Amino acid sequence: MNGAQSLIRTLVDAGVDVCFSNPGTSEMHFVAALDSVPEMRGVLGLFEGVVTGAADGYARMADRPAATLLHLGPGMGNGLANLHNARRAHTPMVNVIGDHATYHKKYDAPLESDIDALAGWLNGWVRRSEHSADVGADAAAAVAAAMDTPGKIATLVLPADVSWGDGGQACEPVPPRAPRQVNETTVKAIAELLRGGEQVALLIGERACRETGLRATSRIAAATGAKPFVETFPSRLERGAGLPSIERLGYLAEQVTYQLDGIKHLIVAGTKAPVSFFAYPGKPSDLVPEGTQVHVLAELDEDVPGALDDLAALVAPDTEPVLQEASRPAVPSGQLTPQNWVDVIGALLPENAIIADEANTSGLLLPSATAGAPRHDVLTLTGGAIGYGIPVATGAAVAAPGRPVINLQSDGSALYTISALWTQARENLDVTTVLLNNRAYAILRLELQRVGAESSGPKANQLLDLSGPDMDFVKISEGLGVPATRATTAEELADQFARAVAEPGPHLIDAIVPPLF
Amino acid sequence: MNGAQSLIRTLVDAGVDVCFSNPGTSEMHFVAALDSVPEMRGVLGLFEGVVTGAADGYARMADRPAATLLHLGPGMGNGLANLHNARRAHTPMVNVIGDHATYHKKYDAPLESDIDALAGWLNGWVRRSEHSADVGADAAAAVAAAMDTPGKIATLVLPADVSWGDGGQACEPVPPRAPRQVNETTVKAIAELLRGGEQVALLIGERACRETGLRATSRIAAATGAKPFVETFPSRLERGAGLPSIERLGYLAEQVTYQLDGIKHLIVAGTKAPVSFFAYPGKPSDLVPEGTQVHVLAELDEDVPGALDDLAALVAPDTEPVLQEASRPAVPSGQLTPQNWVDVIGALLPENAIIADEANTSGLLLPSATAGAPRHDVLTLTGGAIGYGIPVATGAAVAAPGRPVINLQSDGSALYTISALWTQARENLDVTTVLLNNRAYAILRLELQRVGAESSGPKANQLLDLSGPDMDFVKISEGLGVPATRATTAEELADQFARAVAEPGPHLIDAIVPPLF
Repeated sequence: MNGAQSLIRTLVDAGVDVCFSNPGTSEMHFVAALDSVPEMRGVLGLFEGVVTGAADGYARMADRPAATLLHLGPGMGNGLANLHNARRAHTPMVNVIGDHATYHKKYDAPLESDIDALAGWLNGWVRRSEHSADVGADAAAAVAAAMDTPGKIATLVLPADVSWGDGGQACEPVPPRAPRQVNETTVKAIAELLRGGEQVALLIGERACRETGLRATSRIAAATGAKPFVETFPSRLERGAGLPSIERLGYLAEQVTYQLDGIKHLIVAGTKAPVSFFAYPGKPSDLVPEGTQVHVLAELDEDVPGALDDLAALVAPDTEPVLQEASRPAVPSGQLTPQNWVDVIGALLPENAIIADEANTSGLLLPSATAGAPRHDVLTLTGGAIGYGIPVATGAAVAAPGRPVINLQSDGSALYTISALWTQARENLDVTTVLLNNRAYAILRLELQRVGAESSGPKANQLLDLSGPDMDFVKISEGLGVPATRATTAEELADQFARAVAEPGPHLIDAIVPPLF
Repeated sequence: MNGAQSLIRTLVDAGVDVCFSNPGTSEMHFVAALDSVPEMRGVLGLFEGVVTGAADGYARMADRPAATLLHLGPGMGNGLANLHNARRAHTPMVNVIGDHATYHKKYDAPLESDIDALAGWLNGWVRRSEHSADVGADAAAAVAAAMDTPGKIATLVLPADVSWGDGGQACEPVPPRAPRQVNETTVKAIAELLRGGEQVALLIGERACRETGLRATSRIAAATGAKPFVETFPSRLERGAGLPSIERLGYLAEQVTYQLDGIKHLIVAGTKAPVSFFAYPGKPSDLVPEGTQVHVLAELDEDVPGALDDLAALVAPDTEPVLQEASRPAVPSGQLTPQNWVDVIGALLPENAIIADEANTSGLLLPSATAGAPRHDVLTLTGGAIGYGIPVATGAAVAAPGRPVINLQSDGSALYTISALWTQARENLDVTTVLLNNRAYAILRLELQRVGAESSGPKANQLLDLSGPDMDFVKISEGLGVPATRATTAEELADQFARAVAEPGPHLIDAIVPPLF
């Protein structure tokens, strides 16, 4: 057994049986070893940002890591933006980065670079396998590190000779560290606070955005009058009819200021107190209102849903959660607008859907339109690095083959990782991409005003404009093997969306929606 | 004048008047400032790898840096692969990386990351502007650092508040450091060696691959019998009828071994002694044959063409260079093959063309087919990070608006940075992309065998196969605004190539060429 074979065997034994891959020469022994471990599924991406984004989407839905296979430093570089998003999502992931053979590095061959510097950038777990005999143990440690609470990105650098060398030993899985239990004193103190009669808000994040945490949060809110909020960009939010519907904190500082107005105590569980996404001249970065005290119920490395359950048992023992009733908007009619397209989705969202949401400005009204739709998961852009939607939808579909995946995708962001469509076609994944084509970096038009830039002359505006030429996403999608249609009216979108969802395999709808701004 | 305005003013005064840009919120003041400095041209890329690749292509042709504008760490991450290629090409470049406002960084907002770690990865020049009043001086220093010998990548990190703050001061250009002159003793010693009667090879790189260096090299070879070679992947090689035609060292170790067989002394000028691109089990990494002595005529920070001229004056005072005669292959006929498509290019290459070559395996026979074509420049993949061709062609066309740019582009590499086609359409650049569509990572099929991988079963082969679905580059190109046609025969390619070159603006030809391997 060579190093590569021991690596794949160990990964599979630890439950990591999908490897999103974009290999090169230094990874050829890993590629060859795939045939020796039948349980490992290799999924090809034509760009590393597709690979890392897919691994992110996969793990958000599977609750266990996928592996990635990337080619040296430049390959890892191409994957960094979606690794950044995955880091912010606390996604478990195991990157295998091929490197030159140990003895080859000193020659500074063209692809030589400091891989460790890039891996370190992710603030996760990094190890460089030095001997073929160690690769199995390194892989087992990597999976355990990835499965920590919260999830982490584990990066294993695999020199080519360590990969091809003999003496590999597959290793037993290493149990990941259990989450810390929240201190009882803390829960009691927060319970006292909730009973104190002052205006309280409860902000939840991470694992608390699943059913258990949402129900506990809803009970606490109902029993105490605390205002509940979900963090702005949850990695995975369960919602829809039959679940508590809890408002997300806004992206814009102005929204958050409004949402937290009058709050004396802000309790956070599994997330941080809100800060502005960007700095703006003369505006605060810290969005906690003046005079509001922040209290931490549970840190990210703790059992956050457990803490919420404990708190609910104290302050809301007999209170039921408030559940969202089933309710859908009517299918609208007329030209598509930023206001009406979301109602098409709300009206027609299939049962048990997964929404990969990178609609950005076009999606401002999406949450209310889909609140009473059948139960679904929403994956959001946790790290702000655009180009995440198509890959994440791809990975989510690999993880959840029985569930329809809906990718709501803005045009400006789509081009970063567009080739993920090809992977969807190749793997025949059930993904419907609604491409919100407003022909602009609309969010930047808004931001240009919000940062108080003095002038916004023709050259500045030109840099935020995606028309000239208009992109034809029907052609791009068909060119990548995904059947596509164009919708300019709500009726067309409704018709095309219903058909796309009904048919197996990937589809794309180029929805011409004017910019909100 | 704010920091951003002083930055752009200083760049323009130092001759940097093109900024390839993919901005975000933290760069909005830079974007707004573009309108205050009319000489600066902003060129939008829809992905940062397009931006950095275009800046590379621009500088290779303009011999002065372009600026890039990138959005925080993830934006720089997306640009790293083509920055790696640019670093290996010794391309001068000035990156402006927007960062959060200085006071905002401590909040660890979603897009926060260690930009300095990424910038440091490039082994170039890095500075973080701390005050608006310093930005001008920092920019002038960045341009000087980029224009060093050899060229370097200079990265200026620009926090948002430093960008928008008042008190910016435009600065005078700082003269770059002059190249070191080669020691006369070294030149004389090499001259002695050349007169010594032993078999000598002369390997040139970097600036020596332009006319001056090529002529001197040819004279030296003609007068002394030394075998001349150009480095494997020159950043810019001048060639064609009327110039010396000097063979490039091969990519494969096997080729180099053959080329250097029997050589006792290897003289290098502006490059390094050859090493294997990758390591292969049981094969040497160092490609200098056993018993061959390496002698350095000129290091990269020296005046390499000057050293060759000095050497030629000593050993070949009365010898003329051997110039390539004009000669073109006939236009071939029949189904396209890896053997015949290059003859179409050789037969029809327009005068004064720039070839951005990322044909990879499909282009193995290109050099001989184009050797006697009209004089042209060839830009090659210096760093091995694929996805460089379309962006580099884009930047070269911006730098040389009067010259036809021919991008020979393999399919596997094209998808990494395909949206550069949109920038070509937007800027109406005269680029003809010949997309060599062999529906495989053909080079990896070869490499899978070369690394001696034990098995290559169906799963391994599947990861190197780009059919299923076949990509339709006509549709992809049209979707991005570039008119496209498909060629399956040599006659079709010839017809379409001639028309594409004759018409202004970008074109793409999807050339269906079976894999070489």
